[in-house]
Amino acid sequence: MTNAYDEMWKRLDLDLTAHEGLLTVLGKFYNDIYLDQNGRPRGMEYLDFVISEIHGLRIQEITKAKSAGKKVFGTFCVFVPEEIILAADAIAIGLCSGAEVGSEHAERYLPRNTCALIKSFLGFRLARLCPFTNSCDLIIGETTCDGKKKAYEIFNDFMPIYIMEVPNTKSPAAKELFRYEVERFKDKVEQVTGNRITEDRLFAAIRLVNRRRRVLNRLNAIRAAEPAPISGRDALLINQVAFYDDPERFTENIERLCDELEERVGRHEGVAPEGTKRVLISGCPMAVPNWKLPYIIEGSGAVIVGEESCVGQRNTRDLVDEDVRDMGDMLDAITDRYMDINCAVFTPNEPRLRDIEQMARTLKADGVIHYALQFCQPYAIESVKIEQGLKRAGIPLLRLETGYSMEDIEPLKTRVEAFLEII
Amino acid sequence: MTNAYDEMWKRLDLDLTAHEGLLTVLGKFYNDIYLDQNGRPRGMEYLDFVISEIHGLRIQEITKAKSAGKKVFGTFCVFVPEEIILAADAIAIGLCSGAEVGSEHAERYLPRNTCALIKSFLGFRLARLCPFTNSCDLIIGETTCDGKKKAYEIFNDFMPIYIMEVPNTKSPAAKELFRYEVERFKDKVEQVTGNRITEDRLFAAIRLVNRRRRVLNRLNAIRAAEPAPISGRDALLINQVAFYDDPERFTENIERLCDELEERVGRHEGVAPEGTKRVLISGCPMAVPNWKLPYIIEGSGAVIVGEESCVGQRNTRDLVDEDVRDMGDMLDAITDRYMDINCAVFTPNEPRLRDIEQMARTLKADGVIHYALQFCQPYAIESVKIEQGLKRAGIPLLRLETGYSMEDIEPLKTRVEAFLEII
Repeated sequence: MTNAYDEMWKRLDLDLTAHEGLLTVLGKFYNDIYLDQNGRPRGMEYLDFVISEIHGLRIQEITKAKSAGKKVFGTFCVFVPEEIILAADAIAIGLCSGAEVGSEHAERYLPRNTCALIKSFLGFRLARLCPFTNSCDLIIGETTCDGKKKAYEIFNDFMPIYIMEVPNTKSPAAKELFRYEVERFKDKVEQVTGNRITEDRLFAAIRLVNRRRRVLNRLNAIRAAEPAPISGRDALLINQVAFYDDPERFTENIERLCDELEERVGRHEGVAPEGTKRVLISGCPMAVPNWKLPYIIEGSGAVIVGEESCVGQRNTRDLVDEDVRDMGDMLDAITDRYMDINCAVFTPNEPRLRDIEQMARTLKADGVIHYALQFCQPYAIESVKIEQGLKRAGIPLLRLETGYSMEDIEPLKTRVEAFLEII
Repeated sequence: MTNAYDEMWKRLDLDLTAHEGLLTVLGKFYNDIYLDQNGRPRGMEYLDFVISEIHGLRIQEITKAKSAGKKVFGTFCVFVPEEIILAADAIAIGLCSGAEVGSEHAERYLPRNTCALIKSFLGFRLARLCPFTNSCDLIIGETTCDGKKKAYEIFNDFMPIYIMEVPNTKSPAAKELFRYEVERFKDKVEQVTGNRITEDRLFAAIRLVNRRRRVLNRLNAIRAAEPAPISGRDALLINQVAFYDDPERFTENIERLCDELEERVGRHEGVAPEGTKRVLISGCPMAVPNWKLPYIIEGSGAVIVGEESCVGQRNTRDLVDEDVRDMGDMLDAITDRYMDINCAVFTPNEPRLRDIEQMARTLKADGVIHYALQFCQPYAIESVKIEQGLKRAGIPLLRLETGYSMEDIEPLKTRVEAFLEII
């Protein structure tokens, strides 16, 4: 691959040989899953470019910014308020956790029956394959699920980690706890960056992140059109890249893509013929390059029209209130916005069922496929109530539990195809 | 079995046929594991009696108390402050969760890869086999691990449940959250019982529960003697029965047992010859009748000298401060005491390592066997750090992960025997 970056990757302590192997596999994978699609919007070229340079140009940008004194914060969860990082003139990035990489390393420290996403982030670090992780000045973990909460303790032996507490309920006291965590995080970011987060800077950061959320919401709304103007794979990719790319540039490019999609909708043009079965995905996040299930679903002749997921609607729907300018009020607004996320780690979490129902109706989905990472207890257990609730609402649901391995592709395909036949 | 209780069990909506089968199996099981031991203390007769009547006389007592207007609160976790329940003149009991019962029912609602304890409590309820669960006016759940937190949502469709939030860290804000939860719980118990919790009543309850803790700590301390005056199985049973029995009667009986054990120690008399390998158990709780691992360990020729477990030291070590009498101060003292429990759901949880080290030294253990229920992420993941830490301290550790099924008895035996040979 691009040897031009070898020096940079070496300085980031990557395992060059293994990394080249990874990029080769990913390139082939991307080719099969993405580039072979028919009728893709022209605007996806930007995403193709970003992905082709995700460990190259983007890391070069980050490296340059670091030389100029910027700090880099890595995260694995939509509960970490990016606004605060950006307000301190620092860079926020999502970290590698979407591929079965370095499992043999990770399983030296984590039980085999740990979810693939968690094994992956430790595996990427131990196998020295993620230039994002290795560029971080600090990684921000959170206490969402048991698996991550405890795995961060181990990860901490290999990378500096700071933990934000996310509570288990949304009681007033729990919200107060998170408000305290938001403030504590602000102090930490100021300390690491050496930059004071002023009211003006925080306000600008809130508006910037909201802008990115708005364009992603615009994209999601366009997908209600029939025929679907964009594949679910492509929409997922956009949501994934949102965690890596420069927020301003990303937003501009997705605005242009949305213009194109709206023109398509005006022409009744789609990526799949009218009448194609429409599926809503709901459940665990899919980090790059976890495209397994969308590939199976769309490869079975359906089109995915929405993602009730942290890499999807849960990351974009709610905006931080822009009507306040005082520091305390803005931190309150941030707290409120993040505590509105309906993640399965909360109990009770009934509003998530309403979210799924509403998305299914708005996006005219014929059915919902619930995706739980194997060994992800919050989503796997919650899916039972989701199934019961959707049944009452007359919306068919298929519950799947899988990891990153390709070994179960065939049985998954069979189940998806059977589901598509009955919806 | 005792048909005398059939009417009572019927009124409690038990499945009489299946329940009779369960008691028969448990009786046989108890006979093999407990009654066949050599050199048991005489005081264990009380425990044998309690166990033989655990679904009989004790339920009769509870039923009578209920007819007289008392309320019954059931729990699955040592984070629920029993003091508050007792102060409202109500009954607090631990609920059935230690046997592979009703799994086929439970697995209709819970993923197969859910820990055995959680499947068990739902299974007991759905198979109508636990007279304790069915006697409850309210079950108090908590947000300790993901599995329980989410399973309570399902359990709630079959029993009234109230959830207490246990935080994920021990930060000042997290302690404040738990303080709020303690107060909210007090209000709830007052509302359910109709009894006001006065300062005097709460103080009396604090002293009563502390008294029970003290006698269990006394028992644990006696086990430091060589040869061990009591088997680990019997000590575990005592810790288990502490969750079911009337606290005053239990305390008196265990005091007498401790007197007997001290006499034994004076005579250098033990349940196993001097030089027997001494093992400390550490990890997940073992609810009645989960005696599988102790049976394997002691059946392999070792003696268990301590339990770093919620059914063991984590439930007894710390007392609530008895030096305060004001309501607010007592609720603070309760908060402090419970937030001192070093459960693996907290991050970080380093003090647990120190607890294990200290127990291993005090109890003169030759090694530690770490017990994680299969799919219990907090304990399974934490065990890696525990292993590393004990290695540094020169204390050998064997990590085991198992459920309630008897299918893995042979491989477990092999591993335990190999471990006992090297320590």
